[in-house]
Amino acid sequence: MASHRVKLEPSNQTLEMPTGSLLTEAIREANLDIAQPCGGQGRCGRCAVIVDGEGARRRSTIRLSGKDIDSGFALACQTVIEGDVTITIPEQELISRRLVTDKSAAKVEVPFVYDAESMQSVRAFELELPEPSLDDNRDDVSRTKTALVAMGYEHIDIPLPLIQSMGDVLRQSNWSPWVILERSEDSNSSARLIDLRKEPTRPVGLALDIGTTTVTTYLVDLENGKVLNTAAEYNDQIARGEDVISRIIYASKEDGLADLGQRVRKTISTLLERLQRRTGVEPTDIYKVIVAGNTTMIHLFLQIPPASIRLVPYVPAINHPKRYLASDLELDVHPLASVDCLPGVASYVGADITAGVLASGMKDKEDLTLFIDVGTNGEMVLGAKDWLVTCACSAGPAFEGAGVLDGMRATQGAIEEVWIHSETFEPTYRVIGEVPPRGICGSGLISLLAELFVTGVVDRSGNVKLDLDTPRVREGEHGGEYVIAWSEETESGNDIVLTKVDVDNLMRAKAAIYAGFSVLATSVGLDLADVQRVLVGGAFGKYINVEKAVQIGLLPDLPWDRFHFLGNTSVLGAYMALLSRDARNKVREIADGMTYIELSADNTFYDAFTAAMFLPHTNISLFPNVAEVWEREA
Amino acid sequence: MASHRVKLEPSNQTLEMPTGSLLTEAIREANLDIAQPCGGQGRCGRCAVIVDGEGARRRSTIRLSGKDIDSGFALACQTVIEGDVTITIPEQELISRRLVTDKSAAKVEVPFVYDAESMQSVRAFELELPEPSLDDNRDDVSRTKTALVAMGYEHIDIPLPLIQSMGDVLRQSNWSPWVILERSEDSNSSARLIDLRKEPTRPVGLALDIGTTTVTTYLVDLENGKVLNTAAEYNDQIARGEDVISRIIYASKEDGLADLGQRVRKTISTLLERLQRRTGVEPTDIYKVIVAGNTTMIHLFLQIPPASIRLVPYVPAINHPKRYLASDLELDVHPLASVDCLPGVASYVGADITAGVLASGMKDKEDLTLFIDVGTNGEMVLGAKDWLVTCACSAGPAFEGAGVLDGMRATQGAIEEVWIHSETFEPTYRVIGEVPPRGICGSGLISLLAELFVTGVVDRSGNVKLDLDTPRVREGEHGGEYVIAWSEETESGNDIVLTKVDVDNLMRAKAAIYAGFSVLATSVGLDLADVQRVLVGGAFGKYINVEKAVQIGLLPDLPWDRFHFLGNTSVLGAYMALLSRDARNKVREIADGMTYIELSADNTFYDAFTAAMFLPHTNISLFPNVAEVWEREA
Repeated sequence: MASHRVKLEPSNQTLEMPTGSLLTEAIREANLDIAQPCGGQGRCGRCAVIVDGEGARRRSTIRLSGKDIDSGFALACQTVIEGDVTITIPEQELISRRLVTDKSAAKVEVPFVYDAESMQSVRAFELELPEPSLDDNRDDVSRTKTALVAMGYEHIDIPLPLIQSMGDVLRQSNWSPWVILERSEDSNSSARLIDLRKEPTRPVGLALDIGTTTVTTYLVDLENGKVLNTAAEYNDQIARGEDVISRIIYASKEDGLADLGQRVRKTISTLLERLQRRTGVEPTDIYKVIVAGNTTMIHLFLQIPPASIRLVPYVPAINHPKRYLASDLELDVHPLASVDCLPGVASYVGADITAGVLASGMKDKEDLTLFIDVGTNGEMVLGAKDWLVTCACSAGPAFEGAGVLDGMRATQGAIEEVWIHSETFEPTYRVIGEVPPRGICGSGLISLLAELFVTGVVDRSGNVKLDLDTPRVREGEHGGEYVIAWSEETESGNDIVLTKVDVDNLMRAKAAIYAGFSVLATSVGLDLADVQRVLVGGAFGKYINVEKAVQIGLLPDLPWDRFHFLGNTSVLGAYMALLSRDARNKVREIADGMTYIELSADNTFYDAFTAAMFLPHTNISLFPNVAEVWEREA
Repeated sequence: MASHRVKLEPSNQTLEMPTGSLLTEAIREANLDIAQPCGGQGRCGRCAVIVDGEGARRRSTIRLSGKDIDSGFALACQTVIEGDVTITIPEQELISRRLVTDKSAAKVEVPFVYDAESMQSVRAFELELPEPSLDDNRDDVSRTKTALVAMGYEHIDIPLPLIQSMGDVLRQSNWSPWVILERSEDSNSSARLIDLRKEPTRPVGLALDIGTTTVTTYLVDLENGKVLNTAAEYNDQIARGEDVISRIIYASKEDGLADLGQRVRKTISTLLERLQRRTGVEPTDIYKVIVAGNTTMIHLFLQIPPASIRLVPYVPAINHPKRYLASDLELDVHPLASVDCLPGVASYVGADITAGVLASGMKDKEDLTLFIDVGTNGEMVLGAKDWLVTCACSAGPAFEGAGVLDGMRATQGAIEEVWIHSETFEPTYRVIGEVPPRGICGSGLISLLAELFVTGVVDRSGNVKLDLDTPRVREGEHGGEYVIAWSEETESGNDIVLTKVDVDNLMRAKAAIYAGFSVLATSVGLDLADVQRVLVGGAFGKYINVEKAVQIGLLPDLPWDRFHFLGNTSVLGAYMALLSRDARNKVREIADGMTYIELSADNTFYDAFTAAMFLPHTNISLFPNVAEVWEREA
């Protein structure tokens, strides 16, 4: 049988495949992964790749637009190799295995052309001082300041601990110490000394995202801007509550606040040790830290009681923390490193969102953009270059797997993607870690509900159709339910099911999120259909199957190519702010310029929420593509 | 026998005295003290009082100028009552008993017309805040800042500890907290919050003078400027060395610096407790501290190694400390109180001198003024409104009683004043505490050497004349010596003597000081005789018998009325700086504007020192009044 040369990009592999092979088989042969949420049945459109050359024949082009096809896109599972061909796998389609480990953020590019001299606030250099004499017996501090003034630094702050140690350093370095200083946010002529050293040093910084679930760090060389290494770990506060509300309640108990503060510090210390093992950079050589995180996480990190965040009228103690010293915060980096917590907007729109907006670049484009970060809360920002409106909807913990009978977090053993055969109603699923399933995580639940809906297992109100000819549907303790995995397949030996109660919880969650979009659009007199780009941030967003999220009405029904997956935009924004003072100042502009809509004070929200309590929505005309699939399948 | 009505001022007492009584007898009768260092023999001129009325006859007017007599001055010991008379005792002549207790600073007047609103940086007031609502859910910090901005404070810094506690305070005060803030040194629109309280509060501050020997405090009501109480105590560092040099050496030992830091903090804590007992003001209600002290004391207080101060080229680590928080310095006042160490000029011209110059007012007058503070070091400033030159001479510890066989500090049992009969060479002396003598303190040594000189017991080179017809002079172990107290009179049962070696040490000390004056005058092309005012500051200066200090050539031979005794000018300057931002800024101007002359780099100093190694000086024409007394007595 004839074979053909197949070249794979961007990994630059070449292999021989026999005539008639599918592109998916070539990709698997090359040991690469590609998303195939529908199991290769050509229905989800997620395995789209770019084909170059005449050797590929498309069997089906479902979910591809004419423009896509003109651009060379083909569905890997529906395209047959009949000659030499080059396949390019779009990066966002490569499956990132997401056991929550720090490998998920292993490769980070410098996000812009980096010029430390003009952008970076932290600088290190050797300073030559005239030796003191009887004719020039200025004090050590004046001598040092004068030399820095000669370099253009007019206002120099030398913290007391450095004054306490500088006598020895100046003399032992032969009056040529290495100076590490931080220029002010706005001015090159105003600076604060971070350290004086006898030996040369290279400045390193840390971007830190404190998530309710995961703490993520980037260790960054501040001279070339490169990420030296990344590390992520579960927030040790999880032991005191899974979501922000339970943490706030715990913080109000005796010693609760201090306990939570110690726990997140412990997590950070663990990450710093790991980074040190991998790079050799000692934590005390970290001279600058930028912190992003939601408002509650920032309060707990700064040891500020968060109690008022959860009480009407939802007032945080602080949205714009100033820069503090690491020693004031008992953080294990250089004690005089500045720790700069990025600003938030409100109790439920925090620095994770402002950092995310920065990372998304939505302020740099005229396009009408919707930025969303879906977790326990759905935080969302609608806007363009000159304006931003934001709100947060309490989606409840359903997408985190809580409030759902067999729900679980996205760890080993979680069903993360489901496909249901439209005739047999038999499911196919993918489990994180490729082990027997233990439950269903958020993305799995979205996927499952969408499949149940488009295959007609549940109706538009979310009721399980018990009259279907399959043992998978049955009456359970909590009403009608659907069995995803039989007891033989599961780790526990019990069936894994989705019940009517679970469906109701998921529908409330998705309705709250969609209602948020509606309120934002209404507030500025626009239509969601006008949105040019939907930027999905956050760790959860990274794993959502957008197709299915649209099918259940969680996300608006827009053309596929308007959706972009940005991953952890919170840490990415912190990384950008770490590199560039302009980027840092932009976060403040973003926070200051964002109009916050408090949904609990907004009547339109309840109406929008009620309207969204159908699959995909009461007004199905808002979801034309979903309607088409649903009508065809059901 | 006829008696006459004698009225005494300023104590406003009236008594009847018989004809022929001396004014000193009337003063003693009224239970008042007046200096009589020569024992009432009409020689020292220290008992001058102002006489009003015709009832007083002057028997002698030695040491009084024609102008003095025209102004009504008379020597109390040489003036006979022959009719009704009013006597006013000049305040500086009232003897202050000087066991080092805090009573010496008991009554302090507000030094200028005080207007807290315009002068004081620390302000306390109630702040009314709008209650948050769903329509106004700004964060607590923004809400507070906005209300302060409406009052004219543009730049507000709220320290993290207040942010950590403000949530409760704002709510429990019903959104009307008491705010204590500190305005910046230069601007009314820039301020830092010190506290937020539920209850009203009245701001209190502390002026702190850290002397090598004594720590002195004034507790001050910052609303009316009044001194609520004063307290002074020996610096607990004395246990680790009596003078700055021995403290510097001790500080370089392991844990030495920390030990000295803890010791001075302990002293300050003791004083704060004492002030609290007397006034009810808790240390944590002290919102502002101004610190004066010599450069070494400031270094030790700030825990900055002082090693370089004593090594050529005598470079301190810092002359201009910035303001630190009490919590950074572990001082037991309000943790967010600013602790502002006044600036110094050089290793041996510290903040005690710049504060002293402020308190002396010499920058406010056109007169050529000499300001001196004599202790282990003689620090001196020559200048007028527009210029100041300064230097410090190491006088050695002789004036502190060290390096002298029977020398001791000015405490109970110290001979503090001596008078020697010019024919019998028998001494009269006064002992602190009126107990049997234990030794001789600095002022006693000056007094004794002057008496030995003017009565001819020692010659101009300081040699004891062993051929005098008195058992008081004899050959001892250390050369010729003079016996001040026989063993029967003393506490120890041994003779108290002054030896040739002691005399040499004293002469080196006084020569160093006088040489300093000479160098300052020479440096600006002036003559010491041109000095219009000699301002004597410091605790020691307060007790020097100027007459005798001139006789030995320690002080220049100028008319009596040009000498002024200012007491502890260091704490007084700190007090002024505590009250008024203008005064505080003036100290900086003083420090910046002072030209420091390093004597060890100055050739003229050695010549001047050698010339001063006689009694009173090689060139006796510089001491015309002393020459006159000496030639008459000897």
